[in-house]
Order: sequence, then structure tokens, then C-alpha cells
Amino acid sequence: MSNSVEEELLKKAQKWSSVASPLHKFYSGKVEVMPKCIINSLNDFNIWYTPGVAQVCQEIEKDKEKAYDYTSKWNYVAVVSDGTRVLGLGDIGSHGSLPVMEGKALLFKYLGGVDAFPICLGTKNPDEIIQAVKWIEPSFGGINLEDLSSPKCFYILDNLRKEMPIPVWHDDQQGTAAVILAGAINALKLVGKKLKEARFTIVGAGAANTRTFYVLQAAGVDTKNIMITDSSGILSYTRDDLKGSYKWDLALKSNPEGLEGDIRDAVKGSDILIAASRSGPNTILKEDLKEMASNAIVFACANPIPEIWPWEAKKAGIRVFATGRSDFPNQVNNSLVFPAIFRGALDVRAKTISDEMCISSAIALAKYAEDKGLHEEYIIPKMDEWEIYPIQATETGLTAINQGLSRRKLSREELFNNSQNIIKRTQDIVKLLIKNEFIKPLPSI
Amino acid sequence: MSNSVEEELLKKAQKWSSVASPLHKFYSGKVEVMPKCIINSLNDFNIWYTPGVAQVCQEIEKDKEKAYDYTSKWNYVAVVSDGTRVLGLGDIGSHGSLPVMEGKALLFKYLGGVDAFPICLGTKNPDEIIQAVKWIEPSFGGINLEDLSSPKCFYILDNLRKEMPIPVWHDDQQGTAAVILAGAINALKLVGKKLKEARFTIVGAGAANTRTFYVLQAAGVDTKNIMITDSSGILSYTRDDLKGSYKWDLALKSNPEGLEGDIRDAVKGSDILIAASRSGPNTILKEDLKEMASNAIVFACANPIPEIWPWEAKKAGIRVFATGRSDFPNQVNNSLVFPAIFRGALDVRAKTISDEMCISSAIALAKYAEDKGLHEEYIIPKMDEWEIYPIQATETGLTAINQGLSRRKLSREELFNNSQNIIKRTQDIVKLLIKNEFIKPLPSI
Repeated sequence: MSNSVEEELLKKAQKWSSVASPLHKFYSGKVEVMPKCIINSLNDFNIWYTPGVAQVCQEIEKDKEKAYDYTSKWNYVAVVSDGTRVLGLGDIGSHGSLPVMEGKALLFKYLGGVDAFPICLGTKNPDEIIQAVKWIEPSFGGINLEDLSSPKCFYILDNLRKEMPIPVWHDDQQGTAAVILAGAINALKLVGKKLKEARFTIVGAGAANTRTFYVLQAAGVDTKNIMITDSSGILSYTRDDLKGSYKWDLALKSNPEGLEGDIRDAVKGSDILIAASRSGPNTILKEDLKEMASNAIVFACANPIPEIWPWEAKKAGIRVFATGRSDFPNQVNNSLVFPAIFRGALDVRAKTISDEMCISSAIALAKYAEDKGLHEEYIIPKMDEWEIYPIQATETGLTAINQGLSRRKLSREELFNNSQNIIKRTQDIVKLLIKNEFIKPLPSI
Repeated sequence: MSNSVEEELLKKAQKWSSVASPLHKFYSGKVEVMPKCIINSLNDFNIWYTPGVAQVCQEIEKDKEKAYDYTSKWNYVAVVSDGTRVLGLGDIGSHGSLPVMEGKALLFKYLGGVDAFPICLGTKNPDEIIQAVKWIEPSFGGINLEDLSSPKCFYILDNLRKEMPIPVWHDDQQGTAAVILAGAINALKLVGKKLKEARFTIVGAGAANTRTFYVLQAAGVDTKNIMITDSSGILSYTRDDLKGSYKWDLALKSNPEGLEGDIRDAVKGSDILIAASRSGPNTILKEDLKEMASNAIVFACANPIPEIWPWEAKKAGIRVFATGRSDFPNQVNNSLVFPAIFRGALDVRAKTISDEMCISSAIALAKYAEDKGLHEEYIIPKMDEWEIYPIQATETGLTAINQGLSRRKLSREELFNNSQNIIKRTQDIVKLLIKNEFIKPLPSI
């Protein structure tokens, strides 16, 4: 049975691949630029361009924060990549990454009402990427870093977060960490365990899992309750290969006793395993999972194939199982959080996105599912439960205000209504453009 | 009388200024990002994002030219500025320039169907501006430089044109030169003189006029028939202050005899005077113009006030008079050409925009007005004669193909239909969004 399911999944994936190229060509791109101010006649350009615009420019010259009032800076986000770690494809170059970054811009707008624009950079040098992002900052209210290879992605994010006056976010780190936290909260609740007491195993020490570790810490998890493995085994200060790398800090915090071993050693007695490692199956074995505690939870997030198939995990007695895929229950996917976190951050004109803002968003996402009723196949909402975006945006914005990280203060009600209206407006416009065939119907291919 | 007209003009300009700020705030920006591919359900993201998009990325990885087929690169233009010479306002900083760059993006889309995005740079260093533009190139099909101070704008444009695989254009240079050429062709025709025999005076040696000089040369004007002045007088190799500057070449080519003097000396016997110098009035005097030949032509293009008022020029016997303003006849304005030249260049996926492409566009623009019937108050079309854009785009594209500068070949008919459809689509969408109040009606302020 498992083989035929695997074949069917591969066939399904191939179906999407086979239509993607002709459909991308048919629509010749995924986002465009559109006027959003009134244009009834040529005369209106006297307001929007010279001579009227001069007045607006001079006001911003005196106080550059007014750019948030008079331009779309408040809602512009650059989706920045150098194409060095695109999806599961590796380094495919900046041109090759453009369809993904345009797709990300599409998700930003459709799910979060955010005006995101793909900026694919013709350099892979971390200091040059930092410089490029700093130079383009004046146009934008936020920066979304995407698909940068590890470990340079840590260096780039850390530097830009420190030095930029606008939020800088690496979705593969923070977005993944936030959605995993939301899933972990609910899965543990479902099996009657407590986040702060649970024992974690993290399999893979790349961008996503490294950030997940620190976000779990910020959410109150004792780092000594977390064991981390990479392809060479448990992270430990006894390993010379870790010295001088970002993994050194992970090893010291998670494993002060210097335990050594492989995945099977790491998972012994764990309540929850979070994997974001190598595309499976069989990256993690049924025999590994049998070592976990009772009522165990597994998030197998590798793409396109999870580290272990769901039916294998069930055979090992796992009670709650989640993946990154949309065709299994419990999809743990950044797209559940990044449009909302940016919506909230932009609406309060945030200066940064703190871990606390991510955690608020994750808690709100978790609570939404809890209120609907948790069960083994519903620990986290799905992407088409649209209500989750304004709800998370509101909590993100409120936390930014409370932490003194916002440029303006809005009430809970204002935040919710703003974000709901902006998102609904985009989806309604798309419907209108489809109805009027400005966006053409799907061709038969 | 002249005084009361002046007052009225100032009042009108102030009117635009006084409404510009509240209206910019009301619409909170001028362009936004919009989906352009079908989204009927969440399932469609399997095509536009992962897993389907991977196939598209891999095809581009193998052949990066395919980015033109599969993404909007073919139609993306960055409007790049450092804010050092914005309108007549001087160096107001990159944030201050954002409303102008967003306005430019609006004109690009509304008049030319081009997806332009404002990129305001946080550096004024010419080499850093060049570097920034090179780094962002992969996302774009073209670059529009805007409001860069002189002389660095020459250095930046020349370097980028040489080294970039996509068109790089400085509108204040090439756009202005193209529209002035179109006006000059028709004005001279109207008064029965020939472009190749006419004597020119160019007043001001900034970005616009410098490029106009070279474009006139490329269009067949003998440079010895052109006299150029700057604020210190006629450009001449006898002036030590010109040595080592870009004006040296202008002086050698235009004035090999080393004539010296001021504007009045320069204009003696001239058929056409082209000024783009200092906001007037009285930058040029009635007495200066009396020295010109009979049936003389004056383009006084300074903003916001022309170098001499039209009624003063008439008193000096000038037959054809043009300005940069929309409230006088014969508005000589870049917006008549840049959306069309880019439309044509993008539609053939041009590698650059040559002087010949600009000249083709200018000749087509001139011919359109000629066919309608030239007279003293109509030597050039107005911006709302929409037909001019696809006509110019077609000629621009054909010239690129003929010069071997295009990535693809289209017939005259295909070029015309493409550009007409793209422009009409945008304007129809704007009407639809206004009708459905997704773009709100003008508020009463």
C-alpha cells in the first residue's frame, strides 16, 4: 500500500510540474504594478506628478517619516534573494529564483494585502547582500529575505536586523520557527503535555531549525530539554567540527552534558520531534521513532518528501504527525504566518519584527485551531481559513506597540479592521479582474 | 496684463500644491502590486508556488533568458533615484524623492503599460549607484534613472549602458532629448526651414541639453550649426574652466572657432533656441531674442517658470514658442516619449536603448502631429492623444530589431497590437477599479 501511495504522490507532484511551465508562460508572470490613486483625466497628473508633488517631497525632506503617509512605503516589501538555496533545488542563481520570489510576492499580496516586489540580487557575497538591502531601504516598509544559503543567512539577518530602521525577516528562519511553535503548542495540548516540560528533539541544524531552537527558548522552553542532531549526529561540545560555527552555541545550550550519538540516541524519551533536514523517505526510520515517549509527536517538514512517511510513523506508535505538504493533514507551512506577521508589522509601521511578535502570532494561530476543536488531524489551521491572517496581524501589531517597536499606535479593533479590510480588498479585486477577464481563465493545456 | 497672468499662473500652481499633500495622504501612495495570474482556490498556489514552480526555476537555471517567458521580468522597470536633483528642488534625499519616483511609476503604467517600481537609493556615490543597479538587474527588463545630479549622471548612464544586458535610460537626458527633437523637427517644418541646415542655440549645458546636443548630431544636425551657452557664457575651448569636464567635448564640437560671449552673442542669426537652464522669467530677455533670424523658434523648458514668458517672446517677434508646462500651448514633456520608448524596447526584449531608437520614436511623434496639421500652437501632440504611445513603441521596437539590439523579432503589426492592448488594458482596469470604488472617488478637501 505504501508504495502505491508514494507513486500517487509523485504522480500528483509531477502533474503540478508539468502544467507549471505552460501556465507561467500563459500568464507571463504573476504580479504586476497597478495605479491605486484616482485618474479621471490628464489633469490629475498635476497632483500625482509635477507640479503638485513638489510640495509632498518637500514635506518628506523635512521629516522623512512622512514618507509613510504620502507614499506606499508603509506597505512595500522587497522579497530579496540571491538564489543560493531555492526550495529543494540548491543554488540555481538569481534569475532562476525569480519565479519563486514572484510567487512569494503573490502570496504576500493575496494572503496579507502586502505590496511585495521580487528583488533578485546578482551577488552571493553576504556583505554585498547586506549593502544592497541597505541601499534600497528608503523605498520599503519591510524586507523579506528568502532562500539564502546557510550559514550566511544568519550573518545577513543578524546584521540587517541590528542596523535597519525597518523590519528585516528571513522567512526560512523566523516564519518556519513561528509556525512550528504554533503546531507544537497545539500538538502538546492535544496529548496532554506542557510546552515548558516537554522534551524536544530537533533533527537538522539548518536555518529553520536553528531559529526554531531560539524561538522555543524565547517561548519558555528550557534549552536543556532540547536535543539537536545534524548529519553527523548529536550537537555536542565534544565535536571539534562544530568549533567556530553557529552550531557551537546550539551545542552548549542544548547539550551541556556533552552527550554523543545519532538520531536514535537523541530521541530516547522525547515527546516531540521536529525535523527539517533532508528530503525523505527514510531520513528518519520507524525504529528511531519507537524510542520516543508515549503519545509522541513528529513534525517531518522536509520538502518535497517528508523524512518519514505518515504510515510508517503511525506504525511506530506516533500519535500526532505533521508535514510541510498540503496533501497530508497538519501542514506546517510558513504561509500560515508570514503574510499576517508582515501585515501587523506594517500596520503599526514597526521598526523590527521581534521574537515576541512572532510568538504572539503563533499563539494566536494555535488558539484559532484550539477554539475550533483540536484532533489528531487538525492541530493547525489550513491556509484557506482566511480569518487567521487578520487575527494574527492584530496580535503581532499589539505586541510591537507594547514593546515600543512601532511608529504608531492603533487599538485592537483598528488593527483587526485595517488588516481585514486590506486583505479582503485584494481578494475582491482579484475576483473582479477574473470576472472581467483582465485575468484570463485557465487555458486548456 | 503680463503681471496678472503671472499671478494667475502662480495661483494655479499653488492650487495643485495645496491639494497634493492631503490627496497623497488620502490615497496613501500611488501604485500597488496586484496578482495577474488566475487564483480560483488554494490549489492554484501549487502551480504558482511550490511544488509546481520548481520546474519553471530549473528551466531558467539552464537558460536564464527564459526568465522573460516565465516571469514578469519582460515588463519590470526599476525607477532608480538617489534624490540629488528632484524636479526643481535640488538634493532632497532619497526618501524625499519617493513621491516623484512613485509618480513616475504611475505614468509608466498608465501611459505605457510598464510595470515600474520606485527604487530610491540610500547612497549618492556614483560608483555605488552603478553597483546597486547592477545587483538588482536580474529582476528587471529595464532601468529608468531619474533625477540624478549632473555631471555624475553622465558617468552613471555611460557605464551602465555599456555593461548592462538590459536597457538603461536616464529620462532627464534621453527622454528630454527625444521630445525636443520631435518638437524641433515640426517647428522647423512649420516655418519652412530644414533640420540639417538650421542654426541652433542651446542655452544651458546640464543633463537634458547635453544629451539633446548629441541626439541632434545623431539625427543629422551639423554640430558646427549649434552654439551652446552655460551660466558663464558660450562654451569655447578658450575657457579654462571647461578643461577636464564633459563640457570640453561640447565646446570643441560646437564651436571649433572659439567664439566667446554671452547668450546675446550666441543667438545672433539662430533659427531655433532650446533652453533648459534656470527657472525664469528673465533668464532670457526679449532683447536677446531680437537677435535671432526671422521666423525664429524658442523652446523655453525651465520648470516651473520658463526662461521667458510667451508674451515677451512674441513681442520679440518669435513665431513658434514652446515650454515644459501643461498650461501653455506646445508642451515639450518627456512623458510624451518615455512610456512609449520603454514599451517598444520591452516588447522586443531590447538589450539597450540606442540613440537611433529614440530618434525613430521622435520622428513618429512628430509625424503624428504633422498628419493632424501643424500650426503655431500645435507642433507636438498632447499627452492625452493616447494613440501616440503605441505608434512610437512600434517604431522604437522596429529600430531595435533592425539594429540587432532585440532578443526577439515581431512584425510591425504585432508590435502595434501588443503595445496598444497592454496600454488599453491598464487604463480599462483603472476605470473598472474606480467604478467599483476599489479606487475611491476624490474626497472633498
